[in-house]
Amino acid sequence: MEFTAKQIADFIGGRVEGNEQATVHTFAKIEEGKEGTITFLSNPKYTHYIYDTKASVVLINDDVELEKPVSATLIRVPNAYECVAKLMQMYAASLPKKTGIDPLAFISKTAKIGNNVYIAPFSYVGEGVKIGDGTMIYPHVVIYDGCQIGKNVTIHAGAVIGADGFGFAPNQEGYDKIPQMGIVVIEDNVEIGANTCIDRSTMGQTIIHKGVKLDNLIQVAHNCEIGENTVMSAQVGMAGSTKIGSWCMVGGQAGFAGHIHVADKTMVGAQCGVISNTKGNGENLIGSPAMDPKDFFKAKALYRRLPDMYKEISALRKEIEELKKK
Amino acid sequence: MEFTAKQIADFIGGRVEGNEQATVHTFAKIEEGKEGTITFLSNPKYTHYIYDTKASVVLINDDVELEKPVSATLIRVPNAYECVAKLMQMYAASLPKKTGIDPLAFISKTAKIGNNVYIAPFSYVGEGVKIGDGTMIYPHVVIYDGCQIGKNVTIHAGAVIGADGFGFAPNQEGYDKIPQMGIVVIEDNVEIGANTCIDRSTMGQTIIHKGVKLDNLIQVAHNCEIGENTVMSAQVGMAGSTKIGSWCMVGGQAGFAGHIHVADKTMVGAQCGVISNTKGNGENLIGSPAMDPKDFFKAKALYRRLPDMYKEISALRKEIEELKKK
Amino acid sequence: MEFTAKQIADFIGGRVEGNEQATVHTFAKIEEGKEGTITFLSNPKYTHYIYDTKASVVLINDDVELEKPVSATLIRVPNAYECVAKLMQMYAASLPKKTGIDPLAFISKTAKIGNNVYIAPFSYVGEGVKIGDGTMIYPHVVIYDGCQIGKNVTIHAGAVIGADGFGFAPNQEGYDKIPQMGIVVIEDNVEIGANTCIDRSTMGQTIIHKGVKLDNLIQVAHNCEIGENTVMSAQVGMAGSTKIGSWCMVGGQAGFAGHIHVADKTMVGAQCGVISNTKGNGENLIGSPAMDPKDFFKAKALYRRLPDMYKEISALRKEIEELKKK
Repeated sequence: MEFTAKQIADFIGGRVEGNEQATVHTFAKIEEGKEGTITFLSNPKYTHYIYDTKASVVLINDDVELEKPVSATLIRVPNAYECVAKLMQMYAASLPKKTGIDPLAFISKTAKIGNNVYIAPFSYVGEGVKIGDGTMIYPHVVIYDGCQIGKNVTIHAGAVIGADGFGFAPNQEGYDKIPQMGIVVIEDNVEIGANTCIDRSTMGQTIIHKGVKLDNLIQVAHNCEIGENTVMSAQVGMAGSTKIGSWCMVGGQAGFAGHIHVADKTMVGAQCGVISNTKGNGENLIGSPAMDPKDFFKAKALYRRLPDMYKEISALRKEIEELKKK
Repeated sequence: MEFTAKQIADFIGGRVEGNEQATVHTFAKIEEGKEGTITFLSNPKYTHYIYDTKASVVLINDDVELEKPVSATLIRVPNAYECVAKLMQMYAASLPKKTGIDPLAFISKTAKIGNNVYIAPFSYVGEGVKIGDGTMIYPHVVIYDGCQIGKNVTIHAGAVIGADGFGFAPNQEGYDKIPQMGIVVIEDNVEIGANTCIDRSTMGQTIIHKGVKLDNLIQVAHNCEIGENTVMSAQVGMAGSTKIGSWCMVGGQAGFAGHIHVADKTMVGAQCGVISNTKGNGENLIGSPAMDPKDFFKAKALYRRLPDMYKEISALRKEIEELKKK
Repeated sequence: MEFTAKQIADFIGGRVEGNEQATVHTFAKIEEGKEGTITFLSNPKYTHYIYDTKASVVLINDDVELEKPVSATLIRVPNAYECVAKLMQMYAASLPKKTGIDPLAFISKTAKIGNNVYIAPFSYVGEGVKIGDGTMIYPHVVIYDGCQIGKNVTIHAGAVIGADGFGFAPNQEGYDKIPQMGIVVIEDNVEIGANTCIDRSTMGQTIIHKGVKLDNLIQVAHNCEIGENTVMSAQVGMAGSTKIGSWCMVGGQAGFAGHIHVADKTMVGAQCGVISNTKGNGENLIGSPAMDPKDFFKAKALYRRLPDMYKEISALRKEIEELKKK
């Protein structure tokens, strides 16, 4: 499929600067643009690339002022990033979607699979598992017995849903395993990244509410709950029985202690360690243990100056001693 | 199977308060209790749930005083958590246990598999691997050539046992791979979480001693050794040749530098960074680099007050300068 | 195969001390040496083991002075670690190498597979994937559609190459998925650890340049680039669009923010958090957020003394107040 700059501008409500008949057939990053590609400029850090890009068309924010002429055709829009996302969504929607259960997948006889589901080779669907309509299961996903997956869920390769929660009671010689008899429930429109693990509950359910997006290599322990539309970057870890509210955003490698509540719309920085209940909706957290970002950055700046502070304290001590002598 | 409150109380040595004939057939969390479920109250944080729970029976500690009547039948016991664990173990033991090698598993011809072993679909057992009696291998586990797994070991989905240790020697153009010719030995009664990786030794063995419990997404590098009954939470990482003693407890996302020794019964906090040998048995560690928790929390509290300290130092300086002038 | 101490010494240019006819047939760690094994002593921490080792031959640095006689035959060399690595490489090269595509692997019809490639059971090779000559794919590797793998690449079990980058645009009700239309390109001589994830680019390519070595459980987000011969330890995480230079070394559990540039030959400590562009080639970084190691260790040492500093400031305040009164 090929489109002209004019066709695209008309579709997204943009304004062409340059050759309206420039044609494109695929997408490119601005620094890798070639003839026939469309790209975008949204992050001002990348502005310098626009003067050299070989891309045929560049979506660009209305308010960006360029210092010299560019060879690409520009399409001016209020928000270039949103527009390119829309174009890509339209393009992706036009591609054929995989459906069906691959003969190399293992599906337990007692599992219930919805319509228009895709299950890739080597995926494992345990006994009594339910999978809703339109869900997409990539290769090597393992769904343990009894777990429930909603509609239009995407689970990437190697994710493990419903392995035993980590529960052991010490005895004289070692540990007794505490049976993990609950399940995992994943609601509609959730996306789960590659090699992410969500453990089954000790009893009842570990719940991932609708619209949640989890990146790769995340650990969700037993009995946890993640609220609607919360988003977590890669390698985040949640200890057992912790509840995270809706519309939270969690940076990569952050960790949550067990048995705590995190309020809605909390923003948690990368590598943050959240060790207690948060104070209320919309809080920002950073550092380990977690702090308010303003305090964190102030303290961090002074942290680097600790040697200076130490010297100054010693100097003050000396001078006071001298003053005292007088 | 259904049991009455009286039957359960007799079995675990508890005392019924309320309807002795209340029947239950499964377990529930206290906040999700429904008719026919048994639940427990152990963590005082959850006491408020007991007044509204729909569970038919609640196991509760002898010493908990309730402020108003509850509709559930109570069973009073010295330790409710232990009792519910015992009941669950009894129930789990009554369920049929999976055994046998699934025809969709790959077992090398030279592997030796013990009795009453379960090996799930898509698991891979390499050449010369030995697996002891009663061991349970979930789907997608990979056991590389030559590794040895003990009796009654549980390995969850996606775990990788015996991949090459990470060893490279720089040369003029890049790196030479240092062959990893050793194996991994996992002793009896070990449990290994989903997607956890234990690398083979450069020479000799990477050893996980008996009774060790590893959560999900843990990294154990080549030549490491983990002592008996040590427990590690998810996403912990151990660098090469490090030895951890027995009965240690390691919090999530903690990391260990290479070539160090950690003594028995060491408690390592979540996100801790242990960079040198520990001092002796029973030490507590927290922070990165690791510190004694008392020092850590004192220093952390003052860390937040660094801006105040900085201001006070500046004020002292000014006042001293004025005193000097006089 | 068996070799005498003399044969080995001649091969690596070393000097025998002891019985030249001592024979060995395999490698061992010094603390686990048995008759018929060769071991080495390189790290001075392990010197005490040499007096008790049962190994028949020990490679040892020229400059190590021993305090008492040893029963093993010694081979003196300038660098024992290098020599043992060379011997192991020679030994490993003499072993038969696995090649061929296992019938239990899934290879898309449109994939192009080079010569002398090994693809293990349960590995998944998507549509249009290209795999270069001599590449080795362990079990359970997933390579999504369109990705390109170079020559002599090694990919360990459970690694996921080309899952969707993590991109979502918020809307009124939740999130729109931003299609991830790019690919992953892995150049020649790269090694990728078990369960490591490398996401496909939103557009264009996520690139791992030649000679890069990635350990287990690493996250490489969409649009990232890792320069030639850079080495990363386990559990490192890179956020989207970050570029890391060549010949860098990254410690375990370190994290990189998105959209930053890290210069060539940068050394990044374990658990470090790199949140902005680095200053230039050869920088050392440690801590989170990342700092110069000298500053880090100075500040860290004083961090532990914050309670003392706080007390001293209070004392100075009191004394000044008294001086003022006079």
